[in-house]
Amino acid sequence: MDNFTFYAPTYFDFGKGAESHVAELIRRFGGSRVLLHYGGGSIKKSGLYDRITRCLEQESIPYVTLGGVQPNPRSGLVYEGIQLCREEKVNFILAAGGGSTIDSAKAIAAGTPYNGDFMDFYQGKGTIEKALPIGTVLTIAAAGSEGSPNTVITDEKTLVKKGTKSDLLRPRFSILNPELTCTLSPYQTAAGATDIMIHVCERYFSNTEEVEITDRLCEAVLKTIIYETPRVMEDPGNYEARANIMWAGMLAHNNICGVGRVQDWASHHIEHELSALYDVTHGAGLAVIAPRWMRYVLHTNPHKLVDFAVRVWDIPLNETDPGATALQGIEKFEAFLRQIGMPSTFEEIGARREDIGLMTDKLFGNRETEGNYVKLRRDDVVKIYESAVSG
Amino acid sequence: MDNFTFYAPTYFDFGKGAESHVAELIRRFGGSRVLLHYGGGSIKKSGLYDRITRCLEQESIPYVTLGGVQPNPRSGLVYEGIQLCREEKVNFILAAGGGSTIDSAKAIAAGTPYNGDFMDFYQGKGTIEKALPIGTVLTIAAAGSEGSPNTVITDEKTLVKKGTKSDLLRPRFSILNPELTCTLSPYQTAAGATDIMIHVCERYFSNTEEVEITDRLCEAVLKTIIYETPRVMEDPGNYEARANIMWAGMLAHNNICGVGRVQDWASHHIEHELSALYDVTHGAGLAVIAPRWMRYVLHTNPHKLVDFAVRVWDIPLNETDPGATALQGIEKFEAFLRQIGMPSTFEEIGARREDIGLMTDKLFGNRETEGNYVKLRRDDVVKIYESAVSG
Repeated sequence: MDNFTFYAPTYFDFGKGAESHVAELIRRFGGSRVLLHYGGGSIKKSGLYDRITRCLEQESIPYVTLGGVQPNPRSGLVYEGIQLCREEKVNFILAAGGGSTIDSAKAIAAGTPYNGDFMDFYQGKGTIEKALPIGTVLTIAAAGSEGSPNTVITDEKTLVKKGTKSDLLRPRFSILNPELTCTLSPYQTAAGATDIMIHVCERYFSNTEEVEITDRLCEAVLKTIIYETPRVMEDPGNYEARANIMWAGMLAHNNICGVGRVQDWASHHIEHELSALYDVTHGAGLAVIAPRWMRYVLHTNPHKLVDFAVRVWDIPLNETDPGATALQGIEKFEAFLRQIGMPSTFEEIGARREDIGLMTDKLFGNRETEGNYVKLRRDDVVKIYESAVSG
Repeated sequence: MDNFTFYAPTYFDFGKGAESHVAELIRRFGGSRVLLHYGGGSIKKSGLYDRITRCLEQESIPYVTLGGVQPNPRSGLVYEGIQLCREEKVNFILAAGGGSTIDSAKAIAAGTPYNGDFMDFYQGKGTIEKALPIGTVLTIAAAGSEGSPNTVITDEKTLVKKGTKSDLLRPRFSILNPELTCTLSPYQTAAGATDIMIHVCERYFSNTEEVEITDRLCEAVLKTIIYETPRVMEDPGNYEARANIMWAGMLAHNNICGVGRVQDWASHHIEHELSALYDVTHGAGLAVIAPRWMRYVLHTNPHKLVDFAVRVWDIPLNETDPGATALQGIEKFEAFLRQIGMPSTFEEIGARREDIGLMTDKLFGNRETEGNYVKLRRDDVVKIYESAVSG
């Protein structure tokens, strides 16, 4: 086990009706002038917008609003948010929505007190030293941004999608009401579940030895998603299954499943190029890429794929041919993704073979390798993309 | 799943040599006049005391010291600590030791800014509204106090052992260096592992349905302890096994394994009377009580004991007689406790049959029932104590 630090100071308020505590929580964490940041119209249709603004008004907390966050959130709206926060002297940002809205809120939080261009933080040119506090009301179980220090933004000019992180961006509080996720479409639900699983896999596939406790936690989250997701696909209003998925989604990405080990993250980075170019739902892109990555690295470094098969997918270990066991695990994972309606090829997500060179260029920039479980070079990534072109 | 809140804002610095960051962490969390609180001489013998005080001196952080915390920490030393903190205008308490030292530090932290008797908090007569911040350097994996809001103190006059909790008592930081645990005796190590397991069991044995994610996390921690503890008994210097146990011990009690469900805690409360009366090591007392509790409740409410057998101890489910499966699980747990050298009877820990009435009286006070998985009455608890008198 490697040395590590772990710090996850977010206050979670989880359960039915929890959004009614929003004003009280903003006050508790020092907010007195709020930006309410959100996405499309769904929180208006669902009534969540009205419930939140009514709470703020009842508690006499002044607020301004900024909607319009898109999936794969863009830099343009962040600049708008920063300006608004400065003009209105906002001292707390409330993000109501999914990972995109929360990531956008984190960018605004870091950018508002910063003198330079907030994109510096995403381009490795600056360190976040100050940020407005944020709180969240989560509406989809997927990105884990509600408990993480991470944020990913797409540069509107270059369509480059990049992430940054800072403990200062961890939400002060996050309200998780599983009821709010019961109206999600099957596709959004399944893409969310896939994202959660790959957040865990990026941490699970590691060469660091003897991190039994973290392995076991990873397996706990994966097994929960494997059990609960088909139940939700069958009965979208199943509160209990929604609740388990929602909490698992937070655990998958606040790094409790990742401490003490070198993590991978190649699948995420390879997928980011798809999302940036074709605006694919991140989880759907991961469903295309992650199993291809697993098949590709299987021959070089099978050991954690064997664990994945045996301990997550309950496949009996073939001691004379562990690689065959690992392959069965990948196949079971692929079948699971098909069962919940996820795509597996470029064709299904509208991606094109002719862009593989461009995506690989953007992915590597000046770097030589990608990922850690197996250090991939450009031609490895090209092969992974190519393997995904068609079934 | 029940509604819940979860808040675990402790900053963890984990790994080899982590105690060298102690002064930097005290400053980061606002400390400038420190009480260094510790137990017997072991941190002096090991050199930890010198390493900590050297760090404080190098960073010019003034400190006073108060040693002498006993296992099952006593109220007397807490009064002394409170007086010292007031006189010396201490604004940060550093606990260097195990659960007893940290619990004692928490009591001093709550008592210093309080006008009344700090024991009010432990007797349900007052609510903690303010507390000095605390940090910890942990030297034994057991109590989980390094990440929990809990503290247990024994009233010196009445020998009543009572707990309280508050989010204000969660350590601001905890330094977990597994190397510091490599010199623990086999008995201390095994008692710690038992304490960790029962912290999880108290949460696992619940009638709240559909908390799959929390069940899985509990099983993850239990399986880790089952795997790692025998490795440490065989090779006390096994850093990797020590590291996994140490982190599992934190996870077992910061309540990540307990959210969303009604918890039990009967075994802990039944054991506390043994610790208070005979000064038994808490984990050893739990090794005597918890399996007896399991056997006693098996006939009334077997369902989670079946899960415990199947999912934790890998016993195949006997579908026609799940109770038999559950019993096999308990037997395997008892064999595990024997294997690591834990006691199983009153005789082995110096407890006496003739005190059962007294312990039961102290346990119940004015209450009618104890525990939640099965609501025990006085005669149930008497039977559990009696079943433990001899093998």
